[in-house]
Amino acid sequence: MSRIYSNKVTLDKVGESVHLQGWVQKRRDLGGLIFIDLRDLKGLVQVVFNPDVSAEALKIADTVRSEYVVSVKGEVVKRDDKQVNKNIESGEIEVYAKEIEILAKAKTPPFQISEDNINEDTRLKYRYIDLRRQKLQDILRTRYQINKAVRDFLDQEDFMDIETPVLSKSTPEGARDYLVPSRVYPGEFYALPQSPQIYKQLLMLSGLERYYQIVKCFRDEDLRADRQPEFTQIDIEKSFTDIEDMIDMNERLIQFVMKEVKGLEIKSPFPRITYDDAMSRYGVDKPDTRFDLELQDLSEFSKTSSFKVFKNAVEANGLVKAIVVEGASDKYSRKDIDKLEAFVKNYGAKGLAWLKVNEEGLQGPIAKFFDDAETSKLQETLNYQTNDLILFVADKASVVHAALGNLRNKLAKDLDLIDDEQYNFIWVTDWPLLEYDEEADRYTAAHHPFTSPRKEDIEKLETAPEEVKANAYDIVLNGYELGGGSIRISDAELQEKMFKALGFTDEERDRQFGFLIEAFQYGAPPHGGIAYGLDRFVMLLTGSDNIRDVIAFPKTQNASDLMMQAPSDVSEEQLKELGLKVDVEK
Amino acid sequence: MSRIYSNKVTLDKVGESVHLQGWVQKRRDLGGLIFIDLRDLKGLVQVVFNPDVSAEALKIADTVRSEYVVSVKGEVVKRDDKQVNKNIESGEIEVYAKEIEILAKAKTPPFQISEDNINEDTRLKYRYIDLRRQKLQDILRTRYQINKAVRDFLDQEDFMDIETPVLSKSTPEGARDYLVPSRVYPGEFYALPQSPQIYKQLLMLSGLERYYQIVKCFRDEDLRADRQPEFTQIDIEKSFTDIEDMIDMNERLIQFVMKEVKGLEIKSPFPRITYDDAMSRYGVDKPDTRFDLELQDLSEFSKTSSFKVFKNAVEANGLVKAIVVEGASDKYSRKDIDKLEAFVKNYGAKGLAWLKVNEEGLQGPIAKFFDDAETSKLQETLNYQTNDLILFVADKASVVHAALGNLRNKLAKDLDLIDDEQYNFIWVTDWPLLEYDEEADRYTAAHHPFTSPRKEDIEKLETAPEEVKANAYDIVLNGYELGGGSIRISDAELQEKMFKALGFTDEERDRQFGFLIEAFQYGAPPHGGIAYGLDRFVMLLTGSDNIRDVIAFPKTQNASDLMMQAPSDVSEEQLKELGLKVDVEK
Repeated sequence: MSRIYSNKVTLDKVGESVHLQGWVQKRRDLGGLIFIDLRDLKGLVQVVFNPDVSAEALKIADTVRSEYVVSVKGEVVKRDDKQVNKNIESGEIEVYAKEIEILAKAKTPPFQISEDNINEDTRLKYRYIDLRRQKLQDILRTRYQINKAVRDFLDQEDFMDIETPVLSKSTPEGARDYLVPSRVYPGEFYALPQSPQIYKQLLMLSGLERYYQIVKCFRDEDLRADRQPEFTQIDIEKSFTDIEDMIDMNERLIQFVMKEVKGLEIKSPFPRITYDDAMSRYGVDKPDTRFDLELQDLSEFSKTSSFKVFKNAVEANGLVKAIVVEGASDKYSRKDIDKLEAFVKNYGAKGLAWLKVNEEGLQGPIAKFFDDAETSKLQETLNYQTNDLILFVADKASVVHAALGNLRNKLAKDLDLIDDEQYNFIWVTDWPLLEYDEEADRYTAAHHPFTSPRKEDIEKLETAPEEVKANAYDIVLNGYELGGGSIRISDAELQEKMFKALGFTDEERDRQFGFLIEAFQYGAPPHGGIAYGLDRFVMLLTGSDNIRDVIAFPKTQNASDLMMQAPSDVSEEQLKELGLKVDVEK
Repeated sequence: MSRIYSNKVTLDKVGESVHLQGWVQKRRDLGGLIFIDLRDLKGLVQVVFNPDVSAEALKIADTVRSEYVVSVKGEVVKRDDKQVNKNIESGEIEVYAKEIEILAKAKTPPFQISEDNINEDTRLKYRYIDLRRQKLQDILRTRYQINKAVRDFLDQEDFMDIETPVLSKSTPEGARDYLVPSRVYPGEFYALPQSPQIYKQLLMLSGLERYYQIVKCFRDEDLRADRQPEFTQIDIEKSFTDIEDMIDMNERLIQFVMKEVKGLEIKSPFPRITYDDAMSRYGVDKPDTRFDLELQDLSEFSKTSSFKVFKNAVEANGLVKAIVVEGASDKYSRKDIDKLEAFVKNYGAKGLAWLKVNEEGLQGPIAKFFDDAETSKLQETLNYQTNDLILFVADKASVVHAALGNLRNKLAKDLDLIDDEQYNFIWVTDWPLLEYDEEADRYTAAHHPFTSPRKEDIEKLETAPEEVKANAYDIVLNGYELGGGSIRISDAELQEKMFKALGFTDEERDRQFGFLIEAFQYGAPPHGGIAYGLDRFVMLLTGSDNIRDVIAFPKTQNASDLMMQAPSDVSEEQLKELGLKVDVEK
């Protein structure tokens, strides 16, 4: 009799003998009977030990404890209507055990599988027990389904999964590399790839035309809550493509994934917004469009305002923007607003001005600055209603946007304006090609140095680099960057210009990317691509707010593995072979 | 008009307009016309530039050179019967170009794409050009097809692809680890995994039951022709399984792959052979059964032989074995046989005795040692025929097997006994659990320390470790180890015994594997698995004898990347952050 999964033991099996294997989730003794909830990969099934069925099985069942691994044979019996459990697939039946074998005993685990509020370090140390939780198993299943749907779609589109090296070369652009010392060349190092960017472009030069890979990438950065030292990228590159083609294909990819994984039909074309519009209307480059609360521009209004704070900001080439929070005037006390002010100060704002709209008019500490004419102009601009709360930030543009953009997201959460079942995919386009890095006093690539500028902007690379727009597109889901891509530079001369704009000397460029520029000279097709963050994708589709929940064996925020205890010391012998010495006081 | 692949431009498109994009493989000028072989992902198509169709296109075509990237629009025309090219899918038509656009020019490449005998270092330096070759593209396509077939099969069988960490922990067992210095904990290191073995077993303890991954693994070993520092493993683990179940499932997996990739039906069950039999009959643990030439045991015969070399070998507890090479007496001159002798000396043999069977009887330097009675006994044992060549090695067992086992493979190749179209999958079972490592003066795990011993042999772990057989199985294809697996230890006590047999002190065991032994105490299901070498699989299915041909961006035998020039120096700053100093004279 071959083994059957718990979820397959349903009404149609009544009267049949079945063979189950799994873990004891729970044991209850009741009136001389023993009930066991048996857990396997697919769910739970109730097994009953009854002296009238098998006294011997009952005797063994009596010795069984939580998390024992058992093998059970028995007969499927319909449950009384009152006992039906609609929460599990096998909830209409139970199995009367004729035989039970204990395959493995279990010590009492360090925490109960069903508990939810366990200290995370304990969960990570005993990850193999934590992974017994339904929630985590469901997340890993969704992760697998996304992975599979992506592969199935790309296969239909003639893309091939091609592996690129993990032992790669250290490059100075971008984040900090993880290094791997070489033994054959002591004192030299490989680097773990931050992305397969160069390799996938070279595959295009090879004429392989359609590449993809679901691949680990590495960044040795200080970790934030949503970062891991190794993360997984859905990496795609295509030849003979352009922005419209890439956007069309990726919309179809996303539609396929959402249908397969969530059963949802996502309408296309997806909305598009330019980078400048996104910043202006939402304050961020990855707007969450599931709710309103757009930023409204008061710069024009402020020019002539008698409220000096506003006027001064505009005169100093800054901005004044406001968010009108509908019907929220009663929901925020002065104390609550103080907290909002503290929040925006995190983003550099010097303060948060506010007004409440009462039956009598505007109320709040700055109300006195607006006479009737100004109030009426303000009303015209913001179109506010009675009971609205208006929040203002006046500062330089970057501060206004960061403060209000993040405040906007916070308000939506606080006021429960977000429909969790909604998936708003939008494209953000027309990105700047370069960003000015004040610390380094030079331009850096907003995406990466291989992103192409718009044709009409190429001339500005030398004259007005900050105005050059890129052939780049980000796909944003519910306020998170899900993926980003671009049409690449495929012309050696243009690539050289780009490195020049980035402040590379010819020598630096040749040493680091000479082989790539040479490669472009042997017949480079137009090509472009995209990379999705798989971990982020899984988080968004499973409603997880902790990246560690979507990775089977994650690292802590200190990049350590609490279960395996890595990193760790290595032997002097190992170091000697690599030509290295540890130079640190421990 | 959307772009069409070259292989789709066939007779049914005659009269239609098509849009092609690709590389100029070849240009020929002929009687005022220009012919271009246009190459794209799917093959070649002939484009004709004719002044009567478009003088302008002809003019542009005249400037085109090899490896230019072009976009062509034109009309599909049937070729004259005489011009039909059966070697390409579009060989019955040609395209009369109306428009051509040069998308990218190309310098003369460092070697011709069609050339086959290019120095490998040059090929590796210009890998992106080398990868334009049909042969390499076909190999990568086969690699992808194997990958996809494996995924499709395992998905049907309820397996989930689950990613395991690349930044892992250094362990002293097995090969040398690649290390990754930690910046957060200067002086400490991660290691790149040699396999996800421990992680996949922990997933079984988590109740995930069916795991797979196609995953990069790493070994910092001195490279042989068929090794790479990073290689790809098809890694599978299953709970509630046993040897028969694993063998059955893997036979179905292989049948599925062979059907999908090669269109071949492979019969099951596959033949099985024990390790001892494989060594005895083929001299190796991975026999190629596509040809005969089995090793024949002459130890009994030698006991009473008057040929001292044979007799002495047997009396010293050694062996005498022979290979009878049918009808080969004329094919090997004395000089040829000297070469064979030099060959077996590589495997430690002191010499290679031989006899040829003539019409008149045995001939050769040792013939004189055998009188009529002995000759007749030899004939009875070896059952040789006139014109056979008999090759003997007398030595200790390990030398006899290594020498004759490798000689057997060489003879089959030399004599062209191998059918390249044949795929002989066989299982090698009943492996020894432990091997004695003379240098370290202790036992090491023949597979790895997590392989379970046969139940009936557990007692011998302490008393006669060398006699303990493992629940292990290797799948061998045409004389190569394609994969290996085992039923694992799932009992903490037995795992402790195993570490003891391997010479671990309690302290060493606890420090290195304490968390694993603890894990086994929380309810460990019986489980087992297998890992296939994907690179090897691709080599065997594509007939490649160079592992670098089956990897998109391989390393040299010195583990260096000639294209990217890795490994390389890194900055003092990077090293300082890691708490490291290079300690080597350069």
